[in-house]
Amino acid sequence: MARPILYTCAGSRGLRATWAAHEADVELDLRMLPFPPRYQAPDYLEINPLGTVPMLVHGDSQMTESCAIAHYLAVIGANSDLVVDPSATDYAEYLDFTYHADATITFPQTVYLRFAKFEADKGWEDAGHAYAKWFGKRLLKAEQRLIDREYLCEDRFTVADICVGYALYLAQRIGLEEYVPPRLADYREMLTTRDGFKAALAAEQAGAEAGGFGRAI
Amino acid sequence: MARPILYTCAGSRGLRATWAAHEADVELDLRMLPFPPRYQAPDYLEINPLGTVPMLVHGDSQMTESCAIAHYLAVIGANSDLVVDPSATDYAEYLDFTYHADATITFPQTVYLRFAKFEADKGWEDAGHAYAKWFGKRLLKAEQRLIDREYLCEDRFTVADICVGYALYLAQRIGLEEYVPPRLADYREMLTTRDGFKAALAAEQAGAEAGGFGRAI
Repeated sequence: MARPILYTCAGSRGLRATWAAHEADVELDLRMLPFPPRYQAPDYLEINPLGTVPMLVHGDSQMTESCAIAHYLAVIGANSDLVVDPSATDYAEYLDFTYHADATITFPQTVYLRFAKFEADKGWEDAGHAYAKWFGKRLLKAEQRLIDREYLCEDRFTVADICVGYALYLAQRIGLEEYVPPRLADYREMLTTRDGFKAALAAEQAGAEAGGFGRAI
Repeated sequence: MARPILYTCAGSRGLRATWAAHEADVELDLRMLPFPPRYQAPDYLEINPLGTVPMLVHGDSQMTESCAIAHYLAVIGANSDLVVDPSATDYAEYLDFTYHADATITFPQTVYLRFAKFEADKGWEDAGHAYAKWFGKRLLKAEQRLIDREYLCEDRFTVADICVGYALYLAQRIGLEEYVPPRLADYREMLTTRDGFKAALAAEQAGAEAGGFGRAI
């Protein structure tokens, strides 16, 4: 099967996918788009009618969920330690954090981003800030998990760290740092200084610049 | 290991877990809570500091994401057909829809529910309706997938159907039916007439009534 094609915007949730690909040693056919693609690259709607990024196309398969894509790339990749198997002690937590990262931590960040930043002229800034606060409260689960652990699961770096780590990276970039407790800031520092993270960020940036645009988020 | 304990509220996203348990033939220790638990049953915060439902406790493992719990129960249960393995044709889609169901379809429903219903006095109803519309647009992915299929993956009922099916059930209950296209309404009808769905709903309702309260959602 040909290498997977990833459509994404620099700095978007697609970073979970590019990061996982670097850690798993999976070569992507990276297609960078300007942000937001549904307005800046409307042809993309023919590929992904939702207009969302990231999107992974691998053979006949199509995926649009960043955490699912990160897990998938780790499964098909060369570094099996990135995934936690059903027989492992922390399997339940691994699953849970890979879902939690987007459904509970990142989504409220996007509500904040929409109402308090992108559409601040609509008068719903306070509604956006309500979700910023909600985001902050939900970080408690990861914070408590990491009180006496270096990584979320199995004492090693896994896709769960990629999924949650991206949400913490995003918080810093969009003005939500006040909600990130010190333990999670330290954890993010450990994650974002990894070679895999830095290589993913550089590949996205290079692709965006080659396309004549910059980082989205 | 003792049977898994599930804390939930009747009709909440925990229905994904009770439904999966019935389909997978896993016996749960069901602990029904009044809604919202963080105000109606504050002792629950000692068990789950986030105050969210559902929560699954199984041995030393704790999970709070409904789609992750549904997948987990299917993995430990007796009906392996509920899960799609990495070697299967639709593995990527299976993963993707189990994440998509909550992160992209249910979360906007909860934003609508909060701003347009529960906190309608705050003046953010239009912000809530903006996410109702957003929810409607995101249904396109499941709709297109089901144009020529009975189920989302592998021509059989799987946890992906449980995850997406709950979101469609919720839409009907909270006033978002106008956004549900006919194909998805038919699909929901097929899913919610399954014995496993009806048994899960009845078990939740019986538990809530035994506790002296009713259905939350």
